[in-house]
Amino acid sequence: MKRSTILAVTVALVLGGTIRAAEGMWEPKQLPELAKELKAAGLEIDPATLTDLTDHPMNAVIDLAGCSASFVSPKALVITNHHCSWGTLQYASTPENDLRKDGFLAKTWADEVPAAPGSRVRVTVEVTDVTDKVSGALEASLSGAERYDRIEERQKKLIAACEEDEGHRCRVQSFYGGLRYNLVKQLEIRDVRLVYAPPGSIGDYGGDIDNWMWPRHTGDFSFLRAYVGPDGKPADYAEENVPYEPEHYLRVSPAGVDAGDYVMVVGYPGRTNRYRLPAEVESTFEWSYPRSREQFDRMLEIIAEQSADRPDVELKYASMVSGINNVNKNRQGMLDGYAGSGMLERKNKTIEALREWIGSSDERRKEHASTLARLNELIAESQATRERDSALANLGRSSMLSTARRLYRLSREREKDDADREPGYQERDMVPFKQRLQRMDRRYHPDVDKALWSYYLEEYRNLPADQRVAEFDAFVGLDKPSKLQGRLDKMYEKTELDDTETRLGWMEKDRAAFEASDDPFIRLAVAMYDGDREREAESEAEAGEFQAARSRYMETMLAFLGSQGKAVYPDANSSLRVTYGNVRGYSPRDGMVYTPFTKLEGITEKDTGEEPFDSPKTQLELIAARDHGGLALASLGSVPVNFLSDVDTTGGNSGSPTLNGRGELVGLLFDGTYDSINADWDFNASTTRSIHVDIRYTLWVMDKIDKAHNVLEELGLGHLVTARGSD
Amino acid sequence: MKRSTILAVTVALVLGGTIRAAEGMWEPKQLPELAKELKAAGLEIDPATLTDLTDHPMNAVIDLAGCSASFVSPKALVITNHHCSWGTLQYASTPENDLRKDGFLAKTWADEVPAAPGSRVRVTVEVTDVTDKVSGALEASLSGAERYDRIEERQKKLIAACEEDEGHRCRVQSFYGGLRYNLVKQLEIRDVRLVYAPPGSIGDYGGDIDNWMWPRHTGDFSFLRAYVGPDGKPADYAEENVPYEPEHYLRVSPAGVDAGDYVMVVGYPGRTNRYRLPAEVESTFEWSYPRSREQFDRMLEIIAEQSADRPDVELKYASMVSGINNVNKNRQGMLDGYAGSGMLERKNKTIEALREWIGSSDERRKEHASTLARLNELIAESQATRERDSALANLGRSSMLSTARRLYRLSREREKDDADREPGYQERDMVPFKQRLQRMDRRYHPDVDKALWSYYLEEYRNLPADQRVAEFDAFVGLDKPSKLQGRLDKMYEKTELDDTETRLGWMEKDRAAFEASDDPFIRLAVAMYDGDREREAESEAEAGEFQAARSRYMETMLAFLGSQGKAVYPDANSSLRVTYGNVRGYSPRDGMVYTPFTKLEGITEKDTGEEPFDSPKTQLELIAARDHGGLALASLGSVPVNFLSDVDTTGGNSGSPTLNGRGELVGLLFDGTYDSINADWDFNASTTRSIHVDIRYTLWVMDKIDKAHNVLEELGLGHLVTARGSD
Repeated sequence: MKRSTILAVTVALVLGGTIRAAEGMWEPKQLPELAKELKAAGLEIDPATLTDLTDHPMNAVIDLAGCSASFVSPKALVITNHHCSWGTLQYASTPENDLRKDGFLAKTWADEVPAAPGSRVRVTVEVTDVTDKVSGALEASLSGAERYDRIEERQKKLIAACEEDEGHRCRVQSFYGGLRYNLVKQLEIRDVRLVYAPPGSIGDYGGDIDNWMWPRHTGDFSFLRAYVGPDGKPADYAEENVPYEPEHYLRVSPAGVDAGDYVMVVGYPGRTNRYRLPAEVESTFEWSYPRSREQFDRMLEIIAEQSADRPDVELKYASMVSGINNVNKNRQGMLDGYAGSGMLERKNKTIEALREWIGSSDERRKEHASTLARLNELIAESQATRERDSALANLGRSSMLSTARRLYRLSREREKDDADREPGYQERDMVPFKQRLQRMDRRYHPDVDKALWSYYLEEYRNLPADQRVAEFDAFVGLDKPSKLQGRLDKMYEKTELDDTETRLGWMEKDRAAFEASDDPFIRLAVAMYDGDREREAESEAEAGEFQAARSRYMETMLAFLGSQGKAVYPDANSSLRVTYGNVRGYSPRDGMVYTPFTKLEGITEKDTGEEPFDSPKTQLELIAARDHGGLALASLGSVPVNFLSDVDTTGGNSGSPTLNGRGELVGLLFDGTYDSINADWDFNASTTRSIHVDIRYTLWVMDKIDKAHNVLEELGLGHLVTARGSD
Repeated sequence: MKRSTILAVTVALVLGGTIRAAEGMWEPKQLPELAKELKAAGLEIDPATLTDLTDHPMNAVIDLAGCSASFVSPKALVITNHHCSWGTLQYASTPENDLRKDGFLAKTWADEVPAAPGSRVRVTVEVTDVTDKVSGALEASLSGAERYDRIEERQKKLIAACEEDEGHRCRVQSFYGGLRYNLVKQLEIRDVRLVYAPPGSIGDYGGDIDNWMWPRHTGDFSFLRAYVGPDGKPADYAEENVPYEPEHYLRVSPAGVDAGDYVMVVGYPGRTNRYRLPAEVESTFEWSYPRSREQFDRMLEIIAEQSADRPDVELKYASMVSGINNVNKNRQGMLDGYAGSGMLERKNKTIEALREWIGSSDERRKEHASTLARLNELIAESQATRERDSALANLGRSSMLSTARRLYRLSREREKDDADREPGYQERDMVPFKQRLQRMDRRYHPDVDKALWSYYLEEYRNLPADQRVAEFDAFVGLDKPSKLQGRLDKMYEKTELDDTETRLGWMEKDRAAFEASDDPFIRLAVAMYDGDREREAESEAEAGEFQAARSRYMETMLAFLGSQGKAVYPDANSSLRVTYGNVRGYSPRDGMVYTPFTKLEGITEKDTGEEPFDSPKTQLELIAARDHGGLALASLGSVPVNFLSDVDTTGGNSGSPTLNGRGELVGLLFDGTYDSINADWDFNASTTRSIHVDIRYTLWVMDKIDKAHNVLEELGLGHLVTARGSD
């Protein structure tokens, strides 16, 4: 073999195989259609075993609402990302003991502490196609508003019936732009406790700097446990509760994976936009994202100005700042990925091909010709008012105003039967409603809230008068700009909604009490109420039109793609999905390659001793001593820390188990690379990569650093404990 | 073979072979000692052929003073870097025609234009060891000052005798800290002309942003030609001059190299510090470099402030700004490379091992015990006054003051016989002396000069009074800080040294004229003169002591390293050197690999359409069309643009020919990677890499973009021309 040939082959091997990335977040029931591809990629078990949500391994994968996770022991030990437990770590901290920084280990069940209020473990037990019951037999002649109302009403009924089974939470999820609906029934466990989390200098190593980045060295894992009442049914936290006993849990494989190996990720990805029309892509990337980048930057500046020399204020907004930084980096990644990517041209080409396909048969012309035009028409209408819609949405960006609006609306909704109330204001919503009011306590300061609101009011004031909200303008005296700030100052001074007990008290009051209140924000909410409802009705009518048009468009698109023999996955919508692929690196740029694994030594290389690169000293010493505890990957000569794969994931997948070809746990999905950010819109097989914590690093940290030997034993991996002497 | 084993092997192959990098900038005569290593690395010719400076290929490699280059045709066509021709491109530009931006191509000899004044092509014709004649038989009892004077006097004599051969320039170069001296005789050709340079959007693609960086995509090449008088001897520019006919020139190999292939670089590396003592390393990296980073930053700020809204000022300082940026990035690279590198620990270990070796035999103790102590003593003494030395050096950072000092000194030196004058003030120095005075024209503005000087005077004023220069203080009225700025303003207003003719006029005037002048800077230079000479004598005395101590130390070090059977190369000193190695990438960080080649498509990937990433449109079109003109590297599937190798180079090597194992030209050395910057102090085999322009890219640009077909034909590569139709 000539040198040049060897080289071409070897580059492919280093990148981890030449198998084409398998784009797609599949519904479990679709997997048998992909049996051939799955086998070629390396799946060893029968794809049919992945379709039964009540069986292993699907039944072991759980929904943490915003994150994914899995059961890994018969006593409901749950593994998820470290960053999925931040809320709990913060909640369980004391002034002396910052758990997000120091980590936490319960040596016995009795030492486990409650997770943050609202924490839930949801096990999907049934998924039913309810398309007929939701959108079936809706006359084409219905107006958008009627359509919206009918669908909402039918959904509420389905949910109410489903939730009659105590301890369960149900929802209806829309697929393919409202072409199909599933009713998802989940067992909802509400006593969740913290078992173990490494210190932040491992679990959040690299912090915001490494967020979305490769090479990565983050031990992003933590352990929880789900508890139920002594009767085995979901219950609120109580001392006598006992660990839940899941029917199935995942086995951990300490052998891990190597470059090129099959991996699949099962979890609850949040939202993607793979089937959007070119006009939507253009508006998002050329208007909306650049604009939100600017607004986020300004928000960060305002918070920084207000926090200067006020550590209490800084602390209250730390979580918002961290959130904005994350979204901001995401948006910049979207824009960087879009620039010169040809995404728009590709979308245009797809639509051209679709048009051609439609035009090439009379039957198709008859059935599909108008769908594209109608959807484009709606998009154009919606974009025509985007400046106004954005400004009106931002008008509500005062925590005081939004609280007052929600509370007053609650009093109005409660005048109806529960079944007739707006979703979010039904009895089933009252626990999270209350928790949200409580949480504000730790995340609110009047100066920051007012400063941010003032900034957004500038945008609002630039609207032409006839697009503004007259009631609002009159109330704050918008016509006298010089006095506006003084008026806002007075509103924040006078309001009592910044007091938790007062806020909670308002949850119980009736409409008359609100209308008699002299709290300025409540008065403003009352004044705006009728107009708010009118605007809501308009937007619901638009949503109804969109549902009709987009579902028809997706029907056309599915027929088109189906005609090419392609299996088509729906956009992510927080429902349970499976994505599969292989462990592999990639070339982010010419002249450069990201290798699929990072190793322990990379931590030492990055370490500066200062946050976020401040590894525990013990870890650096163990690395220097090459103390691998039998967990090294031979080809790497060290313990792998993180790895890349070409599976297709997005936000919400965080904490998802990464399984090998036999369905064993080999890692946790926790991030995507910077080059993958705009995969939410446009999957690029050569650069889209997900980032996983390698299970071997997790086990190494548990054994060597945190001495979490009880947890290792519960995983059935007591034989891996090498550091017992120093327990 | 198991997958993991394949992987380990393949990573090595992608990086380009597992051969250990061959550290060392070797004197040609040392190469036969390395015959085995050279053959193992891939040299196909006899190393002995590389020792004869009058034979191929050594005789074809030339010195451009600050850059290296080579003859590539029998008519003295010279190839070097684009950045080595910047001065010439700027000089030959007109307001309508910016050659650095647009490039230049002479279709015939008659179209070739003169290079910038002072441009020289120097061919090394003889190197003689003159150690005995320079430092032989110097009594140990000599004082530092006497030692310095004797060495200087002997060197001047050797140079004068050598330069009796007309058309030659000679110098004495010190090796191993003054342990050995070579007399270098060079043919100096002074009619140099510009033949061809690509546009800046190829030759300087990536600009300051990509400087020191990989992946790189820069076409950093240009062509000159050396002319001599009709008699074949060096002559000033004249129309009747004819191309020089070098005895040897390099053959260009359009086949190029592949990953792992042998390469060697022949050229004139400027300066390295590989044998410095730990105390010198510490002082440089922990005091001097951080300090100069700060000072450079402040200088850039001052120039930016002064240039605001004054494009004329900006233009005058563009070259200084670009220089500062380059050095600044270098310094930051030094500091980044030093941090956590363990360089100081390694240096300390070497010294410990040296001490052990000395201590392990009576004879060695007797011969070497005091050398280390003596050198360390001198270093400590020198470092004790580093604050003062730095401030006094910066005191002279007014172009007006330094000009006045040099001019007045010239008048004083001219009172002596030429042979007795200080180097730099002899008749042989008068051409560059005058050119320097002329150049100031384009690089001086009083406001900037004064602002920079004022900044440095702040540092000077912080010195205790007894360390300051009394004559200076009295002249500028340093004791009245409030009036200082006014005094400086007046000096700059009154001086006439900012007028070129006036400056040049002063070259001819005698001491009395200076002493009668009322130009404030000349008066200041006269006032400072005696003190300046005293301080110079002190520093020469110190240099004399250092020469004695460092040469003894290097003798010890050579004996120590020789005892381990190691061939030892001297630090770079602008003399002709050979370094060899292989084409290979590296892993700059865990999880990431730099592959050895970049390719055409990488240009398109980087291109933003804006400087410095503004490729000519034609090039982007040719890349998109995959029009490779037979110059693709099969394993890459495209034309290689730049490549990495592990050869050992530094500043001064720019433009050096990169040769394959048969001595054929396959590229030009033009940069090192960021991770290699502190290799000047500490060669790290795993990360030190040089960056080369691939000759295939050069030829592709010549053929396809610039249609430099006459140059291709002169290279004997007329058969490569594919684009002739469009000439």
